[in-house]
Amino acid sequence: MTSGYRPPFRPRDLARLLVPASVALVGASSNPAALGGRTLANLAGFPGRLYPVNPRYPELAGRTCYPSVAALPEAPDCVVLAVPRDTVESVALECGERGAGALIVLASGYAETGSHDDSAAQAKLASIAEHYGMRLVGPNCVGVASRPAGLHAAFAEFPPSTLVEGARVGLVAQSGALGLGLSHAAERGASVSHVLTCGNSADVDVADYVAYLAEDDHCDAIALAFEGMASGARLQGAAQRALANGKRIAACKLGISPAGIAAARFHTATDTGDPKVWHALFSGSGILEVTRIETLMETAAFLAKWPERPASGVAIISGSGGTGILAADAAARHGVATPQPGPDTALRLRDAIPEFGSPRNPCDATAQATRNPESLRLCADAMLADPAYGALVIPWGRAQPPELAEALGELARRHHKPVCVVWMSQRQDSPVADTIERRPALALFRSLDACFDALGQHQRAA
Amino acid sequence: MTSGYRPPFRPRDLARLLVPASVALVGASSNPAALGGRTLANLAGFPGRLYPVNPRYPELAGRTCYPSVAALPEAPDCVVLAVPRDTVESVALECGERGAGALIVLASGYAETGSHDDSAAQAKLASIAEHYGMRLVGPNCVGVASRPAGLHAAFAEFPPSTLVEGARVGLVAQSGALGLGLSHAAERGASVSHVLTCGNSADVDVADYVAYLAEDDHCDAIALAFEGMASGARLQGAAQRALANGKRIAACKLGISPAGIAAARFHTATDTGDPKVWHALFSGSGILEVTRIETLMETAAFLAKWPERPASGVAIISGSGGTGILAADAAARHGVATPQPGPDTALRLRDAIPEFGSPRNPCDATAQATRNPESLRLCADAMLADPAYGALVIPWGRAQPPELAEALGELARRHHKPVCVVWMSQRQDSPVADTIERRPALALFRSLDACFDALGQHQRAA
Repeated sequence: MTSGYRPPFRPRDLARLLVPASVALVGASSNPAALGGRTLANLAGFPGRLYPVNPRYPELAGRTCYPSVAALPEAPDCVVLAVPRDTVESVALECGERGAGALIVLASGYAETGSHDDSAAQAKLASIAEHYGMRLVGPNCVGVASRPAGLHAAFAEFPPSTLVEGARVGLVAQSGALGLGLSHAAERGASVSHVLTCGNSADVDVADYVAYLAEDDHCDAIALAFEGMASGARLQGAAQRALANGKRIAACKLGISPAGIAAARFHTATDTGDPKVWHALFSGSGILEVTRIETLMETAAFLAKWPERPASGVAIISGSGGTGILAADAAARHGVATPQPGPDTALRLRDAIPEFGSPRNPCDATAQATRNPESLRLCADAMLADPAYGALVIPWGRAQPPELAEALGELARRHHKPVCVVWMSQRQDSPVADTIERRPALALFRSLDACFDALGQHQRAA
Repeated sequence: MTSGYRPPFRPRDLARLLVPASVALVGASSNPAALGGRTLANLAGFPGRLYPVNPRYPELAGRTCYPSVAALPEAPDCVVLAVPRDTVESVALECGERGAGALIVLASGYAETGSHDDSAAQAKLASIAEHYGMRLVGPNCVGVASRPAGLHAAFAEFPPSTLVEGARVGLVAQSGALGLGLSHAAERGASVSHVLTCGNSADVDVADYVAYLAEDDHCDAIALAFEGMASGARLQGAAQRALANGKRIAACKLGISPAGIAAARFHTATDTGDPKVWHALFSGSGILEVTRIETLMETAAFLAKWPERPASGVAIISGSGGTGILAADAAARHGVATPQPGPDTALRLRDAIPEFGSPRNPCDATAQATRNPESLRLCADAMLADPAYGALVIPWGRAQPPELAEALGELARRHHKPVCVVWMSQRQDSPVADTIERRPALALFRSLDACFDALGQHQRAA
């Protein structure tokens, strides 16, 4: 947050990078363990024109392999440089001469080492890209993926993801390792449209990615993890574009403690900025701040499904006294009101649950009722109809029939209020994920605190 | 925390309940969906004498079925009552006359309904048990399991667990639903020796269970989730016995907010007590307080593996700059110091990691080094040898070879300092669990905050 202001790029500025018609991979390799081999395998499904480049092979993976960028049959939109650090600069120059649109530089050994020479080499690379009007991603990055574009221009193996309209999360991460770990959410059913990393951010940075996703119709919310950027105003500008398009952002800021700030300075030469300033920027820009990285993806998925700010007051329906108490405690911890139901609602609850249940908020529907989908549906309908509530939370301890998820989704749509299911079992690979994660009207959290933190911030958001 | 003081039971008081030679199941059924059928299936592996009781069957599951408790060939140690609420009292009387040692009452509809009559019925049940000198578990409970005793006297299906000496967690939960959800930790490799629930706690309560586990050699630490008890001094007494035997307790207290306290009163007629008083009791008794229920089992597993208080100062080795920054932030959030290494350590780190890494704390060993087990092992050895550190934390984003886990465990034992691995991927069903969870010297967390919260509290514990 120190140097001058450059507004975030517009989508057209990043089009050749993220929606390329042609991709070249320099340093393509037949060795599946090498960077160039791993990236080639990831690019295999690219629907456009793919050009492996390596003078050692006439052919690679059934495709013509070109001896150099200069020898390519067209000016490539996007070029991935999977070459050793000491040849990056000459390849970049070659790409500029050939009219490439964007470079993705995987090699490490630049500004992140903290040495003056390495920082100078990075600046040189940036100036080459600027001179030729190319966008530059990295260096020291793992690459990018855009599922809508069929693009997986990365050596990291981001898992495939099913795209569900109204549930798609675009993931933006400065750190490649974090981006990869977060992208694994797709394996448990999350809909991850993009994984965009930028490493040292010599040119394209996380604010540019956020601005891009703000205007991409294939993404419904944005998950962001980053340690710093040249100017916070750039992220502010990007967030404004997202809000204007009805998209919310969940952000996890790294480097918010003295030890973390020092680590960022020594590990990645990043100026993390003043945590207080970032905090104010987030809340002023309608960005939900996530402290615990493991809750970032579920928070963003919730925002994808429910971008509109919920009204205050949250109803809770539990299948046991214990989980209801825990949910009420978590709501209080995050400043979320859990008012009592109106008299009509209480009567409807009374009718729907066993006599030993509790027709209050939290509503203890009892295990008996939660084993009876119709009873749970009636409770949910009664609570959602009550103007005291802007959202409904259901702690959930075991797999439920898909029909119940369907019915709850239908209720959420009809009452136009979010329904959040919270998984309460230590069983990690829960069958509930498939039932819920891919339904646009139902949000799934793995922690009561993550759920109520998201609800509370969303209700109070700018 | 209102009524008079009764010291927690001694192990011999609970022996017929938890280490029975004979178990009777009244209301045993051939219907696998019925309470009596589910409990019978769970009891199938009991190594002692098992007596199904039900006048409707001459035989059940290949065993003689008895028409009544009176007709049993011996006085049963433990009797599970899987009968409707309105026959519980007469069966309890019959058990008393037959000389039973303990009753487990599954039926609901007692004090938890809040009605005077139901509370009176519960008091009557307790007085019957007292009159005959029987221990009473419940009513309104799911039952108990003791893996060392081969006992699964519950209708809830607590999953089986591999018992690993030095890693065994005894789980105590007032709420059956929470107990079940927490017991699922066994499915991902946690060693769960006991699952002890008590529902309405008319006689045996969570303090009695804690006191029992304190003196049970088959359990290395205790995980506790509860909303309230008659007297906090009872838990204090139980915790003293645990500490005296070198065992630690992780506790999640339910009902710590006004809304949660109200929910407890209405849902389970529980007086939750003053949160501040409980907080003081926990810290004064060396009990680690867990706010987020989803971190209870991993915190207890850590305590099972490392019951001794670690010295202050924590070293961090990460494979990426981003995770190192996040770890430093989490440490700061929980008051854990992360001092810089001494000069000798820094030299050893410098030798072990690539030039673009960071020989500091957090040590950014780089992805290159973390793909090289020997390099990571050298870093860990250097950090653990440094007197600045009482523990080592390694954020971990992908499966690692079992040999590395073995090597890290060996280093932890040799330096006698805990090594905590934190799983940083959104991949839930992680292969790392099998590698680490069952190793007594290595702790596994799924959240940086859970790890540093546990380390910080443990370092400062009484």
